[in-house]
Amino acid sequence: MKIAIAQLNYHIGNFEENFGKIKHAIADAKAQGADLVLFAELAVCGYPPRDFLEFRDFIEQCRQTVERIAAEANGIAVIVGAPSINPRPEGKDLFNSAYFLANGQITHIAHKALLPTYDIFDEYRYFEPATDFATVPFMDRRIALTVCEDLWNVGNDNPMYRSCPMESLSLEHPDFLVNISASPFDYGHAADRIRVLKANAHRYGKPIFYVNHVGASTEILFDGGSLVVTGEGAVYDELPYFKETVKVYDLDAIHAYQSSDKVQPKDKIALIHDALVMGIKDYFQKLKLSQAILGLSGGIDSALTLVLATRALGADNVKAVTMPSQFSSEGSVSHSQELANNLGCKMETIAIKEIYEVFISKLAPFFEGLSFNTTEENIQARVRGVLLMALSNKFGYILLNTTNKSEAAVGYGTLYGDMAGGLAVLGDVYKTEVYALCRYINRDAEIIPLSIIDKAPSAELRPNQKDADSLPEYDLLDQVLYQYIEQRKGPKELVEMGFEKALVDRILRMVNINEYKRFQTPPILRVSPKAFGMGRRMPIEGKYLS
Amino acid sequence: MKIAIAQLNYHIGNFEENFGKIKHAIADAKAQGADLVLFAELAVCGYPPRDFLEFRDFIEQCRQTVERIAAEANGIAVIVGAPSINPRPEGKDLFNSAYFLANGQITHIAHKALLPTYDIFDEYRYFEPATDFATVPFMDRRIALTVCEDLWNVGNDNPMYRSCPMESLSLEHPDFLVNISASPFDYGHAADRIRVLKANAHRYGKPIFYVNHVGASTEILFDGGSLVVTGEGAVYDELPYFKETVKVYDLDAIHAYQSSDKVQPKDKIALIHDALVMGIKDYFQKLKLSQAILGLSGGIDSALTLVLATRALGADNVKAVTMPSQFSSEGSVSHSQELANNLGCKMETIAIKEIYEVFISKLAPFFEGLSFNTTEENIQARVRGVLLMALSNKFGYILLNTTNKSEAAVGYGTLYGDMAGGLAVLGDVYKTEVYALCRYINRDAEIIPLSIIDKAPSAELRPNQKDADSLPEYDLLDQVLYQYIEQRKGPKELVEMGFEKALVDRILRMVNINEYKRFQTPPILRVSPKAFGMGRRMPIEGKYLS
Repeated sequence: MKIAIAQLNYHIGNFEENFGKIKHAIADAKAQGADLVLFAELAVCGYPPRDFLEFRDFIEQCRQTVERIAAEANGIAVIVGAPSINPRPEGKDLFNSAYFLANGQITHIAHKALLPTYDIFDEYRYFEPATDFATVPFMDRRIALTVCEDLWNVGNDNPMYRSCPMESLSLEHPDFLVNISASPFDYGHAADRIRVLKANAHRYGKPIFYVNHVGASTEILFDGGSLVVTGEGAVYDELPYFKETVKVYDLDAIHAYQSSDKVQPKDKIALIHDALVMGIKDYFQKLKLSQAILGLSGGIDSALTLVLATRALGADNVKAVTMPSQFSSEGSVSHSQELANNLGCKMETIAIKEIYEVFISKLAPFFEGLSFNTTEENIQARVRGVLLMALSNKFGYILLNTTNKSEAAVGYGTLYGDMAGGLAVLGDVYKTEVYALCRYINRDAEIIPLSIIDKAPSAELRPNQKDADSLPEYDLLDQVLYQYIEQRKGPKELVEMGFEKALVDRILRMVNINEYKRFQTPPILRVSPKAFGMGRRMPIEGKYLS
Repeated sequence: MKIAIAQLNYHIGNFEENFGKIKHAIADAKAQGADLVLFAELAVCGYPPRDFLEFRDFIEQCRQTVERIAAEANGIAVIVGAPSINPRPEGKDLFNSAYFLANGQITHIAHKALLPTYDIFDEYRYFEPATDFATVPFMDRRIALTVCEDLWNVGNDNPMYRSCPMESLSLEHPDFLVNISASPFDYGHAADRIRVLKANAHRYGKPIFYVNHVGASTEILFDGGSLVVTGEGAVYDELPYFKETVKVYDLDAIHAYQSSDKVQPKDKIALIHDALVMGIKDYFQKLKLSQAILGLSGGIDSALTLVLATRALGADNVKAVTMPSQFSSEGSVSHSQELANNLGCKMETIAIKEIYEVFISKLAPFFEGLSFNTTEENIQARVRGVLLMALSNKFGYILLNTTNKSEAAVGYGTLYGDMAGGLAVLGDVYKTEVYALCRYINRDAEIIPLSIIDKAPSAELRPNQKDADSLPEYDLLDQVLYQYIEQRKGPKELVEMGFEKALVDRILRMVNINEYKRFQTPPILRVSPKAFGMGRRMPIEGKYLS
């Protein structure tokens, strides 16, 4: 038997385009002699469709698209993910389902039982968990057909669910497992995925075909990396990261495979780099936009963002703007120009001193006798925001936000100023990781001028300002932030780990009192297991640790 | 037996303050002769605690606070809501529990079974649903103790859950029902609540004591309205809306009650008014802020916001600013001044023409040959945003956003301009409801000048601009928006209802392509069953209907 995996990039609610891609991949797989072709979880409507699932019309369009796909399932069987309607009045109205299509018909529907409802996932918001399970007969074999999370409850010390669908399915002695997924990227996820599939192969002793999404849905990135694992738990193949691929496998060859894992390198920084480039590219493509704009400060965050943007969109499609003030260092313009030249990118310069001074003069009657403070700093940042948004509005550029995760965490940024933008490229990348990404980009040549990388971080909003005046050193800050945000360690645990109590209290307080700022920031490309945004939901006026 | 209901205003994560309030209410109830006092769902930590629940330290503080409350339960029993730890490894790590405290001890814990995971609710994100149920013995009686949603699955045509906890509990023949809730306000919710409790009383034939939160958790408002319902389904008492109250009831008197429902008036507009005032007040109080600022345009939205703010914070604590441009009508300043005078509020004037012109001159090299369009309009709105935020930063005022729901829906507003602010007061109030609120405020005297109410809505960002140039008439717009947003009617259903197809397509497209704007707006005080924000989750780059 030959089985094809179609790892595709779907667009939420773009039924016509998704159908077109699926149809094309079915034809491709058939041409390559496949008996069965696999598409991902909710491939028909894209993932995550969110509250579109509450519209009957949307569900109807899903159904119609499944029927159009079924009509293509001739001479080849198809497995594809789409919502289906729960026929019982009790429970949620929908299931998250895997459709088995053969001979032009829907011949079987398997529903997802384990509904991820944590981090960025809201599946129990929409779906009823399955309670009945049956294998799918196909060409004298039985397939254990599961959806994503249904395979993730195996061998866990502290399983998140009471049930395990594969335990039920295994009673019917399936010949192989199919898992259709929409499993978002983070820098550790490809390794996790392999670990979980291997655990299933060891437990059930059967080959597994795993198909994932690839591409970005705004902040949620999918890396692909679909897998074929043998019944002995060896990785027979891992599909490319960040790339649409259709590939056909021979079941006999998988059974016969006795060698070691065929996997790709999983360098954290390289993965983040590729994920961010894809995230920018897909955001623009799916919104039918082409041109980006960003402010270059002469610092490392905007430099890195510019490199990533040019790689995603092409240098011709990215406009860099430098907006020096009286507090800007000479390098803020010259280093920015050097970078833009290296990238072949056009840079404009708009001095903000005059605008800033008009604001100050208009506010003088109110501010009389009060000294320069963050108010005046914020005015500069906001003047830059207004200028960038004006260029954005006039020419259709999308403003890229360059705030990094360390700054976003502690609120070191100006709302409506440097926190503005349509998409936050680095909002899930700690400052120390920003440095690592720059070194990665410069591994063969000095693309980002060393003058930018080596200077001490500064917002340049007052004379001789340095980030270190207001914040702990980034090496230390990022360690505490990682333990608090990603690992959810509380204050006592952090102190037990060896961090100073005063430092811990200061940082946790900064994080918590700045929820109001993060509430209003653009979507952040998610590359870690815990990004700001939908995956981290905090009360604005919570008193805890603030 | 005497039973007290303590309807209190809790602060998320403020264990010390919540404990203090609970302790005080226990003493109060005891002094009034109560045998049992009831506190709301998750009273110990406030609702919704969101991802604080993922911190072991937070859960530990909940536990310690429950133990401190137990120590107060002497000579009186206490029911109070708090999370508890799921002792089984399988399933989520927590339950959403009702603790029964007596003789200084925890004597019973009942867990919530039906976990709302829709709209603003994310309970399955954190909690495992209960599967075992037992009544609580107390003073020769048996109490069916349930948490919020557990009573909401009765007599529904299309129930959201497969199970019904009260069906299990009723097998033990309870003498009365207790339901501890955190049931957020919307303008129809008090009536819904009564309907559901009556349905339970009719089904189980026993009195019900229902205790709710009162107060605001940022955007989520609780109106109180706790209830006592007789076994025959009559409302014996409904506690006040928007007010902390402790009240004691005699069970015998409830059994003897034969009269009709004692309920409060439920005028939609009056409820919205009171809810918004409470929402502003609590936002400031819980964040330890006192002063607000807002821009007065001379239009109805900012006028209404100013009235609500002065009612919440006092006229001395609200700073109004008018920022006329060359496009502003004469009335924009004079009508605003008249309103400020009526309210006893101080108003400042800052003309923006000069600042606007500096921006335009700085952008002239880029904009050469291009005509005036929304870019220049947005610059004006953003200049005002920068000025308001500068005053906010310098003096600690919190900027109130004045965008209404109709504008937010169709994206008729400027990001970082009039869409800026710490809290959006009217973001869940349609334009037609804004008018109704103004008439309500003026019911006895002309507080909001009729000149403001009667003028045609205009952003005044270009000569002779009117909202009606860009938008359908509000009467019609709001009807379509309500059906699409609150009622989740799709395009075909809307046309079937009699709306013109071209109009429907235009409005739905405007709503959907502006998700990116709403993603970055301040928290919106929720007064309807479907507000923008956490309760409505839409993909930014979804293609559906856009």
